[in-house]
Amino acid sequence: MSTPVQPPIDVVVMAAGKGTRMKSRLPKVLQRLAGVPLVQHVLNTAAQLNARSAVVITGHGADQVEPVLLAPGQVLSVQCVRQEPQLGTGHAVQQAVPVLADDGVVVVLSGDVPLTQADTLQALIAQCGGNQLALLTIDFSDPTGYGRIVRKGEAVQAIVEHKDATDAQRQIKEVYSGIMAVPARLLKAWLARLDNQNAQGEYYLTDVVKFAVADGVPVVAHKIADPLQVAGINSPVQLAELERAHQLRQAHRLMEQGVRLQDPARFDLRGQLDCAQDVEIDVNCVFEGRVSLGEGVKIGANCVIANCTLAAGAVIHPFTHIDGEKLGVSVGEGALIGPFARLRPGAQLGAEVHIGNFVEVKNSTLAKGAKANHLAYLGDATVGERVNYGAGSITANYDGANKHRTVIEADVHIGSNCVLVAPVTIGAGGTVGGGSTITKSTEPGALSVARGKQISIANWARPQKKPKA
Amino acid sequence: MSTPVQPPIDVVVMAAGKGTRMKSRLPKVLQRLAGVPLVQHVLNTAAQLNARSAVVITGHGADQVEPVLLAPGQVLSVQCVRQEPQLGTGHAVQQAVPVLADDGVVVVLSGDVPLTQADTLQALIAQCGGNQLALLTIDFSDPTGYGRIVRKGEAVQAIVEHKDATDAQRQIKEVYSGIMAVPARLLKAWLARLDNQNAQGEYYLTDVVKFAVADGVPVVAHKIADPLQVAGINSPVQLAELERAHQLRQAHRLMEQGVRLQDPARFDLRGQLDCAQDVEIDVNCVFEGRVSLGEGVKIGANCVIANCTLAAGAVIHPFTHIDGEKLGVSVGEGALIGPFARLRPGAQLGAEVHIGNFVEVKNSTLAKGAKANHLAYLGDATVGERVNYGAGSITANYDGANKHRTVIEADVHIGSNCVLVAPVTIGAGGTVGGGSTITKSTEPGALSVARGKQISIANWARPQKKPKA
Amino acid sequence: MSTPVQPPIDVVVMAAGKGTRMKSRLPKVLQRLAGVPLVQHVLNTAAQLNARSAVVITGHGADQVEPVLLAPGQVLSVQCVRQEPQLGTGHAVQQAVPVLADDGVVVVLSGDVPLTQADTLQALIAQCGGNQLALLTIDFSDPTGYGRIVRKGEAVQAIVEHKDATDAQRQIKEVYSGIMAVPARLLKAWLARLDNQNAQGEYYLTDVVKFAVADGVPVVAHKIADPLQVAGINSPVQLAELERAHQLRQAHRLMEQGVRLQDPARFDLRGQLDCAQDVEIDVNCVFEGRVSLGEGVKIGANCVIANCTLAAGAVIHPFTHIDGEKLGVSVGEGALIGPFARLRPGAQLGAEVHIGNFVEVKNSTLAKGAKANHLAYLGDATVGERVNYGAGSITANYDGANKHRTVIEADVHIGSNCVLVAPVTIGAGGTVGGGSTITKSTEPGALSVARGKQISIANWARPQKKPKA
Repeated sequence: MSTPVQPPIDVVVMAAGKGTRMKSRLPKVLQRLAGVPLVQHVLNTAAQLNARSAVVITGHGADQVEPVLLAPGQVLSVQCVRQEPQLGTGHAVQQAVPVLADDGVVVVLSGDVPLTQADTLQALIAQCGGNQLALLTIDFSDPTGYGRIVRKGEAVQAIVEHKDATDAQRQIKEVYSGIMAVPARLLKAWLARLDNQNAQGEYYLTDVVKFAVADGVPVVAHKIADPLQVAGINSPVQLAELERAHQLRQAHRLMEQGVRLQDPARFDLRGQLDCAQDVEIDVNCVFEGRVSLGEGVKIGANCVIANCTLAAGAVIHPFTHIDGEKLGVSVGEGALIGPFARLRPGAQLGAEVHIGNFVEVKNSTLAKGAKANHLAYLGDATVGERVNYGAGSITANYDGANKHRTVIEADVHIGSNCVLVAPVTIGAGGTVGGGSTITKSTEPGALSVARGKQISIANWARPQKKPKA
Repeated sequence: MSTPVQPPIDVVVMAAGKGTRMKSRLPKVLQRLAGVPLVQHVLNTAAQLNARSAVVITGHGADQVEPVLLAPGQVLSVQCVRQEPQLGTGHAVQQAVPVLADDGVVVVLSGDVPLTQADTLQALIAQCGGNQLALLTIDFSDPTGYGRIVRKGEAVQAIVEHKDATDAQRQIKEVYSGIMAVPARLLKAWLARLDNQNAQGEYYLTDVVKFAVADGVPVVAHKIADPLQVAGINSPVQLAELERAHQLRQAHRLMEQGVRLQDPARFDLRGQLDCAQDVEIDVNCVFEGRVSLGEGVKIGANCVIANCTLAAGAVIHPFTHIDGEKLGVSVGEGALIGPFARLRPGAQLGAEVHIGNFVEVKNSTLAKGAKANHLAYLGDATVGERVNYGAGSITANYDGANKHRTVIEADVHIGSNCVLVAPVTIGAGGTVGGGSTITKSTEPGALSVARGKQISIANWARPQKKPKA
Repeated sequence: MSTPVQPPIDVVVMAAGKGTRMKSRLPKVLQRLAGVPLVQHVLNTAAQLNARSAVVITGHGADQVEPVLLAPGQVLSVQCVRQEPQLGTGHAVQQAVPVLADDGVVVVLSGDVPLTQADTLQALIAQCGGNQLALLTIDFSDPTGYGRIVRKGEAVQAIVEHKDATDAQRQIKEVYSGIMAVPARLLKAWLARLDNQNAQGEYYLTDVVKFAVADGVPVVAHKIADPLQVAGINSPVQLAELERAHQLRQAHRLMEQGVRLQDPARFDLRGQLDCAQDVEIDVNCVFEGRVSLGEGVKIGANCVIANCTLAAGAVIHPFTHIDGEKLGVSVGEGALIGPFARLRPGAQLGAEVHIGNFVEVKNSTLAKGAKANHLAYLGDATVGERVNYGAGSITANYDGANKHRTVIEADVHIGSNCVLVAPVTIGAGGTVGGGSTITKSTEPGALSVARGKQISIANWARPQKKPKA
C-alpha cells in the first residue's frame, strides 16, 4: 500500500473580532499569552503543519493586527483579508475565497484559540482525508452556549446553536470547537450557498454542515479530550486562566525532561528554554525570549532571565536580571552571577567570571576569571583574564554624545570607586589606586593614581542641626 | 407609593475577644487583612452603609484597640465602650445600651469578620424594616459548632447552639452568622431581659430571638451563599486563608475592569489600586496604600509599589520598589523605571525620565527627559530637563546635621562617581567631569572638574599574599 | 505492669536505585527536598528514633552517595554496604546481614521516601513488639502498580504484587509502603530462604511475609492515612509535588505556632526556622539553613534569608538577601535592613543599625545605631556607635593579595563616595569629606579630606555626537 499524496494545507484564521470584554485598546488577537500574541500562537501551529499559506481575516483593529502578521520573520506565508462589515463567521471565510487555491485542504482556525496542538490538527486533517468535512469537537460537562454536535450513528448530521437547540439537543455534551478541515473546492461551493436567514441575520460557517449532508459528503468529528486546546479567550480572566494552564504545562514538559523546578506554579516561560541535564530552577523565576542553560546550571530564586546562553555549571544567584535583547548575553562555564546583578545586551562573560551584587554589565567582554564583585558598572569594556574590578568603579563610556571603549588588560587590579574615562587602556598587570579617575592610558605593570592629597583639620566642629523655623 | 423614610443605622461591633489561638500580643481585631486591621474593615463597611455611629465593644487589649479606632481620619463617628469582665455576647451588647439612641436600627457586627459586604447588610436592614429582627444566615455543609437556625415555615423560631441541639436540629445546615439587624428600642428591651441561666453561665445575644418570638415580633433570616462574607478569624491559618481568598477576589475585580494580571494567585493589594485602560501587571507584585496607574502602564515582575501615581505609558521594570509614604511619588508619562530602582517619598519624575538599576531617588524633582541610569543617589535635588546624571554619582545632601538642596539645571551632564555637596547649583548646560567632588556652584555652560592629577609608578610590585600563620 | 525493655533499633535504608526517570547525573537518593538529600531526610528520621545504627545499601552512584552519608556531622552511626549487581529488594537487604546485630529490631526504609514521620515508625515498631513482622500500609484509591495487602481477618496473609494479583485481589485498596519493622534474627533467617524463582528473576524482600506465615510468626499491618509519609520520588514531577506538599506543611506548622504568613503557598523553608511571638513574613520569602527570628520581626516580600539570627523588632524590607553561611549573620534589636540590602557572612549588626538600599556588609561589626543607608560596601570593618557611613562609600579591604581591616570609631561621619584604604582607622567623632580617598589613619575629631581642587572651564563645548559611518 503506498502512502497517498497529501493535499496542500491552507489555513484560514478568524481574527476580525473586537473582544469587547477585554476592555482593551489592543485587538483581542494581539493580546499576549506567554508573551506572544494569540494569533501568532495560531500561526506558529500552522507552521508546524507545514501549511502552504495562511489567510488571516482581519476586521476590528486591522490596522494594528496586520503589521504584526506581516512583520519580517513571520514563520509562514501570510495574507490578510479584511472583513468589513462583520456579518458572521461564514461571511468571514467568504472574504478568503479569492485568495484560496482550489487544490488544498482548508483548516479554519480561530485567532483567539492559541493552544491547539499541531498533532491534533494533523489528526483532524487526516480525518478530512481530502474529501470529507472534519470538525474538531469536545465534550463539555457544561455545554451551555456552545453549538451541539448532532450525530446519527457516528456521522455528524448538524451543528445546532445553543439558542436554536431543542431540549433534547441541549442534553448533548459534544460541542463544536470552531475548528474544521475541509477541501477547498467543497468549502468554496458551500460558502456560495450561505444565507443569513436566521435570528441573528448573520452568515454562519457552521451551515456548511447542512450543505455537506445535503450533498452526501461525509461529516466526521475528531473529538479530543483536552479543553485547553480549544479554549478561546474573551476576557482578562480567561486570558489569565489560560496563561496559568499553559505555564503549568510548560513546567511539566521541562520537568519531564529532567529539569528540577522548585515550584511549577511559580515558573513563567515566555519564549523558548533549552536545558541540558541537571538544571535547577528555584522559585519565582521568569524566562523570556530564547534562553539556553548548560548542564548543571542553577538559577536562584526570583530571577528574570531573557535572551541569553549560560554555559555548564554557571550559578545565578537570586535577584539577578539578565536580558540580552537582540545582542544576547553569554555566561561562561562555572561563572557566578549575582545576587542583585544585571547583565545587559552584549555582556559576554568567560569561564569562572564573577559578577556580584549591584553590578551592571553592558556590551562588555570579560575574559576568564575576571571579577567585578560589588557595586560597579562595566559598559563598552574589554576586560582581560583575572582582572579584579573594584567596588564602586565605573567605566565612563559616554561623554554626553558618543560612547567609547575601555580596555582593561589581563591581571589588572582596579581599586575601589575608580572612574575609567573612555577611550582608555589599562596596561596588563597594572594597578589603579582606589578613588582614581583615569583619563590617560597606563603602561603595563604600572601603579596609577589620580587623587587629591589627604589633609586634616584637627578638632573640626561639625555643622549643628538647625532648629526648625 | 412613597419610599418610606429609613431609620438611622447604628452599628455595634463586637471587639472584646482575646483571640488566644492567634498566639499574638496583638488583640485579634487588630490583626491585619490586606494590610488593614480586621475591625477597621468592619468600620469601613459600616461607613458604606452611611451608619450614623459605631459603638465598638472593647475588652481584651482595649488599650491597644481604642487608639486605633479613635485615631484621626476615622471614617465614621466611633465610640468605644469597654466590656469588663466578659460575660457573653449579650453582655457585650448591653454595654452599648447607654450610648445607643432609641430611634435607630442597630446592626450587630463582629470585629473579626472583615469581609461582609455593604450590599449584604443593606439587604439585611431592609429585611429588618425597622420593626423586625433580621438575622444574617448561611448554609454550611459542615455546620458543626455553629448555632442552628430553627424555622417554622419561613419564620425563624430559634437559634440553637450546637451543644444544646437535638440530633434532628444538628442536621440543620443553616447557621447564624453572628450578624443581625434589629430596631434599637426592641433590642434594648430584650437585652434587659437576658439572663445567664445556661451551661456556660453567659449572657447570650442569641436569646433575643426567644424574646422576639414571645413578643410576636417577626424574626426573619437573610440567607446568603458566600461564606467569605461571614468568615471569622481565630488563628493565623484562618487569617492566611481569608487573605488569599480576599486577594483573589480583588484580582478578579481588577481583571473584570480590564487589568491584565499574569498570575492572579501572585498578586497582593493592600489598599486601593486605580487602573486606567490596558494596565499590565506581571507576576508577584505587591501594591500598598493608594496607587494610581495610568493608561498602558506596565509593571514588571517582583515589584513593590506603594503610595504613588504613575502616568500613562510608564514602564516599571522588575525588582522596582516605590513607596511614596505620606509625601507620595509621581512618575511622568512614558518614564522608564528600574530594574532594581527605588523611588522614595517626594520623588517627582517628569515625562520620559529614566531611572535605572541601583538608583535611589528621594524628595527630588526630575524634569522631562532627565536620566539617572546607573548606581546613583538623588536626594533633595532639583534636576532640570534632559540632565544626564552619571553612574555612581551622589548628591551629598546631609552634612551630618542638616539636609541641603542640590540644583542641577537643564541640559547638565554629570560624569561618573561625582559628589555634589549641597547646597550647590550646577548651571544650565554645564558639565561635571567624572570623579569630581563639587562643593561650589558652577556657571552655566562650564566644565567643572575636581580631581587629582594622574600619576604613574612604573613596574609597581603589587603586595604579595601573606602565608597564613 | 512494667514497661518492657525495648530492643535496640537498627535501620536499613534502601539507596541503591538509579532513578532513571530523574534524568539526572545525581543518584536519586541525593536529589534534594527542602534543600536536603532525600536519604538524609530518612537518616534524620532514624536519628529521631534513637536508632543504634543505620546501614545504607548503596549501588548506583555509590561513589557519590557514600561520601555524603559518611560526612562529618552525620546524625547517627552510618555504615554503607554495596549491592552490586542489583538483584532485587531482598538481595539488597541480604547485603546488610553481615553488619546487622542479632538482638535488634530492623526497620527497613527507602532512601527515596523522605517524609515518613518518626512517630509513625515508633508505632510500627510497637506493633512489631520484638517478635512480629510489622508492615506499614496505606489505602490508595488507585492502588494500580502497588503490592496489595491480603488479609485473613486482621492478620496479613501475603503481599501480592500487582502483576501477580487476581482480579479480586486487585480490588484491594490497602498497599504495602515498602517500610517494615522486623526482629533481626527472624529477618536474617528469612533472607537466607529467599529465592528468585519469579517472573522478574529477582529476590523480593516481600517474600518474608510468606515465610512468617509459614513459621507462624504473626504479620501485622500498621495502616496510616497520610500518603505523604509513604510517597516515593521517581521523577522531577514527583519531587516538585512532594516539595510543595512538604512546604505547605511546614508553613502550617509555623502558623499554628503563631507565625503570620501572608501566603503559605509562597513560602519556602530549607532548614530550620525558629520564630518568637508575632513574627510576620510577607509573600515569596525563602529561608535556608538555620534562621532564628526574634519577637515581632517582620520580613518583607521577596527576601532570601539564610543562616542568621535577627533580634526582636528587626525589620527586613523587601528584596533583602542575607546569608551568613558558616560565619553567621546577626542583626540587633530594632535594626532596619533593606530594601535591596545584602548581608554576608560575619555581618554583626547592633541594635538600631540601619542598612539601606544597595548596601553590602561582609565580615564587619556595626555598633548600635550605625547607619549605611545607600549604595555602599562595608567589608572587614569595625564600625562604632552612631557612625554615619555615606552613600557610595567603600572600604577598600583587599589590596589584590591580602585583606585588611578598617576601623571607624564612634560618631564618625563618612561623606559620600569615599574610599577607606585598609588598614586604616578613622578616629572617634571625625569627619571624612565626600569624595575622599583615605589612606592614612585620622585623629579623633578631625575633618579629613583628600580631593582635587575644583576648577572650571567656562563655555566648554561638549563633544558632539558623531554621525554614524
